[in-house]
Amino acid sequence: MMNNAYVAGVGMTRFCKMPERSFEEIGQEAVLKALKDAGVERDAIEEVFCGSALTGRSMGQRVLRDLGMTGRPITNVENACSSGSTALREACTAIAAGRAETVLVLGIDQLTRLGGGTIPGVETDLDPNLGMVMPALYAMRARRYMQETGATRVHLAKVAVKAHEGGQLNPYAQFRNPVTVEEVLASRMVADPFSLLMCCPTGDGAAAAVVTTKKKAAALGKKLIRVAGTALQSGLYKPGFRDLTRSELTERTAKLAYEQAGIGPEDVDLAEIHDAFVIAELMYYEALGFCPPGGAPAFLESGATRINGSKPVNPSGGLLCRGHPVGATGIAQVCEAVWHLRGEAGERQVEGAKVALTHCTGGGVSGLDHGSCAINILVA
Amino acid sequence: MMNNAYVAGVGMTRFCKMPERSFEEIGQEAVLKALKDAGVERDAIEEVFCGSALTGRSMGQRVLRDLGMTGRPITNVENACSSGSTALREACTAIAAGRAETVLVLGIDQLTRLGGGTIPGVETDLDPNLGMVMPALYAMRARRYMQETGATRVHLAKVAVKAHEGGQLNPYAQFRNPVTVEEVLASRMVADPFSLLMCCPTGDGAAAAVVTTKKKAAALGKKLIRVAGTALQSGLYKPGFRDLTRSELTERTAKLAYEQAGIGPEDVDLAEIHDAFVIAELMYYEALGFCPPGGAPAFLESGATRINGSKPVNPSGGLLCRGHPVGATGIAQVCEAVWHLRGEAGERQVEGAKVALTHCTGGGVSGLDHGSCAINILVA
Repeated sequence: MMNNAYVAGVGMTRFCKMPERSFEEIGQEAVLKALKDAGVERDAIEEVFCGSALTGRSMGQRVLRDLGMTGRPITNVENACSSGSTALREACTAIAAGRAETVLVLGIDQLTRLGGGTIPGVETDLDPNLGMVMPALYAMRARRYMQETGATRVHLAKVAVKAHEGGQLNPYAQFRNPVTVEEVLASRMVADPFSLLMCCPTGDGAAAAVVTTKKKAAALGKKLIRVAGTALQSGLYKPGFRDLTRSELTERTAKLAYEQAGIGPEDVDLAEIHDAFVIAELMYYEALGFCPPGGAPAFLESGATRINGSKPVNPSGGLLCRGHPVGATGIAQVCEAVWHLRGEAGERQVEGAKVALTHCTGGGVSGLDHGSCAINILVA
Repeated sequence: MMNNAYVAGVGMTRFCKMPERSFEEIGQEAVLKALKDAGVERDAIEEVFCGSALTGRSMGQRVLRDLGMTGRPITNVENACSSGSTALREACTAIAAGRAETVLVLGIDQLTRLGGGTIPGVETDLDPNLGMVMPALYAMRARRYMQETGATRVHLAKVAVKAHEGGQLNPYAQFRNPVTVEEVLASRMVADPFSLLMCCPTGDGAAAAVVTTKKKAAALGKKLIRVAGTALQSGLYKPGFRDLTRSELTERTAKLAYEQAGIGPEDVDLAEIHDAFVIAELMYYEALGFCPPGGAPAFLESGATRINGSKPVNPSGGLLCRGHPVGATGIAQVCEAVWHLRGEAGERQVEGAKVALTHCTGGGVSGLDHGSCAINILVA
């Protein structure tokens, strides 16, 4: 597929708990911001994709109705934590196929009102029903990783500290406060070795992007930002030994995304990655090729992944600090990437960023890596 | 967009109530039948779309896991009653864009175990919460239609009788019995003027299709069946007068689908349309251009839409008789279309069929026509 889609505009709500608002209103805020940022009228949108993991029915239609924006094709997509990113991939594909020229992508979820958890009443969802919920799964991976590499809880805590370094500079983040290693370690235990501040919060939010052709993006006068790679994969389900400390799914998806974009991990100036739990960020440094297997604790300690480091990761605050309204996260990552590539990220700007990678993964069904991973590479 | 996708194989479960089975097993049955029909191995599938309206999380991944078919891109799509049809459109687009050559499309829902209804706890879903559920909405439309056109409850009953003429010949149908006008009229009242047999049943089921390029379809040796048109639209939300007796949404979607396929309603040899309630079939005869506005009762009475008529509609039994496991319906319609176009529809075969139209519409949010309509046109 020819990756010929460009991000012309982005916008998002602050991520936080907003039980007093309707999800329609939350989504509309993001949509209107993205349209304004792109400088396009509502009528310019030819098609819409809405990514939502909690998957109320017809989410996109419901959000767009009171904006007078129904009457065009609207498609809702769901891929757990990768729902928003998957929606972007479908939008790029519609443009590549010549089905539409200007497409709106919305990511949205409202955990305070629409809830979360497993499929109601589905006994086949065995592992979560037996206690293997996400914090427990990642805690198990963390324990094994610590055993294999000598990483400590202090290393884990430092991931959260770094997340808050970015988040405190991000007006869209759920948390705006700095935290110390001591505070992270002292927060209440959730799933050993994770204390509360080592887990992403629940919350609400929406993010939107306008994607279009090169010609139309150029006419809008904004800096051209191409979606140079957009890869989606699902996990492998195999009996037998699995290495808990590695993410084969993210490795495989990253390989495809890098190939599409014609770049390697060394070319990435900035990455927004799926740090739902602190161990995830360390594992994904390795899976994305930013450092060798087992090298993540030292890579973190080196400061490379801080805003002013050689490979900044999650300047937004990531899931740990910006928050994680599930379906919205993939598009929030795209917002952050675009702001950096345009030089509009304010105090948390990664200077001179030209290549940004966004990474979502989740929805693990019955254990490890069986969900969806989506990686997008944006190039200015 | 160049419509260059071909349906190489189809398969479905019987539609019925199967609370004793898991939805994974139901989905797997349809997938394996479609693969077998296409004559392709599991590894030939490069990408998967799963349409489900009840939108458990990661439905496609869950169904495919135990078939060893994860590890490739899987995307779940939701557009209420049009979920399956929307999934087909995305598959055709992926092929048109060159993203994949052979794509599996699955439609699935299990109402007996995953339930239905509105979004839990969403107060903004006002109309259903106030009683404007689907039977009530269509009953209101029926009353107005009867007032405008002089149609009677006998006309409505005859739609159900015709549906059972096809369904009794369809081994996949939820109901296999013939019914008489008297029986339909005498069944218990649901929403005046609808008695029970004038409403589609709830149930469970799955349907799948393998879609591929012309070259690959030809190599598989089956009759070439092209998806010549695949249109999706969402409803318009406008204050003020709305004509309850017309479906502007279906009219608009049909216009696009006909344009893509380069045909008109006169060229359709066979249509599978969304007869969730008897009045729907009459309204959609008109919206699809099969007869003039207000002409549907006479068109029905003429016998034109019976299996051996000039414009056969719902030889499968339609939603009224084959059943309506929501997300599965759009792909079940494609199965039926393919069987007729290949001459494999057995006793209910529409002789010489070369052009088939499938039509889904639903998800109306707060009233009329605000949901999704998807129309696919298949040409042998």
